[in-house]
Amino acid sequence: MSDYAIGVDLGGTNLRAAAISREGKMLNKIAGSTPVGAGRNAVISDMVVAIETLQAGLPGQKLSGVGVGVPGFILMDKGIVASAPNLPEFDNYPVRDEIEKRLGARVILENDANAAALGEKWMGAGRDVDDLILLTLGTGIGGGIIIGGNVLRGYLGMAGEIGHITISPNGYPCGCGNTGCVEKYASATAVSAMARLMNLGHDLSSEDVFHLAKGGNPRAQAIFESVGIALGTLLATLINTFNFPLYLLGGGVTAAWELFEPPMVAEASRRSFIYRKNPPRIQRATLGGDAGLFGAAYLPFQA
Amino acid sequence: MSDYAIGVDLGGTNLRAAAISREGKMLNKIAGSTPVGAGRNAVISDMVVAIETLQAGLPGQKLSGVGVGVPGFILMDKGIVASAPNLPEFDNYPVRDEIEKRLGARVILENDANAAALGEKWMGAGRDVDDLILLTLGTGIGGGIIIGGNVLRGYLGMAGEIGHITISPNGYPCGCGNTGCVEKYASATAVSAMARLMNLGHDLSSEDVFHLAKGGNPRAQAIFESVGIALGTLLATLINTFNFPLYLLGGGVTAAWELFEPPMVAEASRRSFIYRKNPPRIQRATLGGDAGLFGAAYLPFQA
Repeated sequence: MSDYAIGVDLGGTNLRAAAISREGKMLNKIAGSTPVGAGRNAVISDMVVAIETLQAGLPGQKLSGVGVGVPGFILMDKGIVASAPNLPEFDNYPVRDEIEKRLGARVILENDANAAALGEKWMGAGRDVDDLILLTLGTGIGGGIIIGGNVLRGYLGMAGEIGHITISPNGYPCGCGNTGCVEKYASATAVSAMARLMNLGHDLSSEDVFHLAKGGNPRAQAIFESVGIALGTLLATLINTFNFPLYLLGGGVTAAWELFEPPMVAEASRRSFIYRKNPPRIQRATLGGDAGLFGAAYLPFQA
Repeated sequence: MSDYAIGVDLGGTNLRAAAISREGKMLNKIAGSTPVGAGRNAVISDMVVAIETLQAGLPGQKLSGVGVGVPGFILMDKGIVASAPNLPEFDNYPVRDEIEKRLGARVILENDANAAALGEKWMGAGRDVDDLILLTLGTGIGGGIIIGGNVLRGYLGMAGEIGHITISPNGYPCGCGNTGCVEKYASATAVSAMARLMNLGHDLSSEDVFHLAKGGNPRAQAIFESVGIALGTLLATLINTFNFPLYLLGGGVTAAWELFEPPMVAEASRRSFIYRKNPPRIQRATLGGDAGLFGAAYLPFQA
C-alpha cells in the first residue's frame, strides 16, 4: 500500500489542496475560494470537505497526514495561528486540533512562505541542497529559510520576515511601521506603484509592466532595473549572513526575471565580498503556486 | 579522572590559550603575542608550546581535545584556513593536521567570531537559550550565529559576516567593496573616526569618546546616539530574519552601553514589528575577551 499526504494552502482568497505521494508525485489537486466572509467555521468545513474529497479519490491508499500552510505566524507546538491578518477569526484558535478532530488524521500547521520554501527544497529548485532561502515576490515579499533541510521558525514562529528587511533607511513607509522595507521596492505591488509614479498607468499589474518593458518602454525597463537593485541589496545581506549555496525567487514579479536578474546579480556582487569569493546560485523557483502545496504535504512525511 | 579541553585564540596580534574543564571552569590561561613576522612555523610552534605548557600544568587529567579560534574562514572538514587576512601564511595550509601531528591530540578549527558566540552560549550570557547571535564591536564588527546550540557556518564557513550588512546603501565605502556596511558606523574604529570628524581629537579610542560623553560632551554623546541607531537598524534586520530570543553585543564599544542602548532599542523597535510583538532580549555579552577561549574549548566537547 503506497502512502500519501495532503497539503493545503489556506489563503485569504483561495483555498487549495493536493494529495501528494511520498515520492513527491502530485496525485490530485482541488482549488476553490476561501469563504472568509462566512466565518471561521465555514472555512474549516470547506477545508475538511476538500481533504475528504481528495481522500475519497484515493481508496486503498494510506493518508500519512495533512499539512496546512497559513498566511500567519504559527505556534507549532500548540497548533495555533498566533496572528493571520487575512484570516482574522483564526487568531489564537486551536485550528489544528479542530481539524484533527473532524478528520481523524494528523494535522501540522506551517506558515505559508515557510511551506513554499520547504516545497522547493523537497521537489523544486532546491532538491540538491539542504540550505536555501526562498523569496516570493507577490503582494508583499514572503520569505522562507531552510537550514539543514528544516524550516527556520524562530522561537515564536516569526522567522523569515525577509520582506521587511530595511534596504533604504529613509525610504517609503511600510504598513509594518518601518521605512524602506524591501517589499516596498521589489514586490508586485511595488512594481504597480512605480508604474503609476512613472505615468505608465494607474492599474497596471507587474505583468503589464513587464510587457511594456519587453516592448521597449524605457520607463518600464527602469522599474525592473530598480527592482533588481533592491533585490541585489537584500541578497547581499542574506549571502553575508547565511553563506547558503542557493537563493530562490518566486512569485509573479519573476515573470520579468530576464530584466531584473542582471542588475540584481551585479548589485549582490558589488555589495557582498562573500558573493565575489564564491558566487552562490540565485535562481527562479520552479514549482510556482504549487510550492506551498508540496511543502505542506511534506510536513507529515518529515515529522 | 576529570577531563578538560584547551581553547586557543590565535589572533593576528595576540596568542592566548586556556585549559577549561568539561564543566566550564577555566583552570589556567596563558597569553602572549603572535609572532606573525617570524613566519608560520614560529606561530605554530608557539601555539604548540602554549598547549603543552597548559597540559603540563594538569598532570593526571585527560585532554579531550584542542579548539583553535582563527580570524578567517575555516573549511571545517579539511581543517584548513581558507582565508585569514591577518595570518597570510596560513591560507590553504593544513594547520589542523600539522598541530594534531605535533601534539598527538585532536584539534578543531573555528572562526574566532563563531567561537566567541559559542562561548557565550556555553558559559556566558546565552546559557539559557539554544539560539543567539553575538555581535562583537571591535576594530570591525564580528558576528557569530548559534542555531540549536550549533554554529551556523554556511557551506564554505563564511556565514555570520554581519559587520558587512548594509545599513546605509549610499554610505561610507568599506574595504569589503560595499558601501554603508554597519561596521563603518558602530565599530570601535567607527567611533574613533566620528570623534575625528566631530573635532574631538585625532587619536581617541572608543573608550576616550565614552569618557567625554559621560563627562557631558554633547558631540561625544551624539556619536553614541548614532552608534545606537546603526545597531538598532542592524538588529531589526536580524530580528525579522531569525526571530531568536537573544542578541548579544560584546567588544570595546560596549563600555558605552548605557549611552547607545536606549537609541539602539528604540530603533530596533521602530523598524521591527517582530520586536514590537515580542521583544527579544538584547544584552551585553558577559565573557569579554575570554568568550573565544571558552567557545574554542567547547568544540572538542561538542564534537
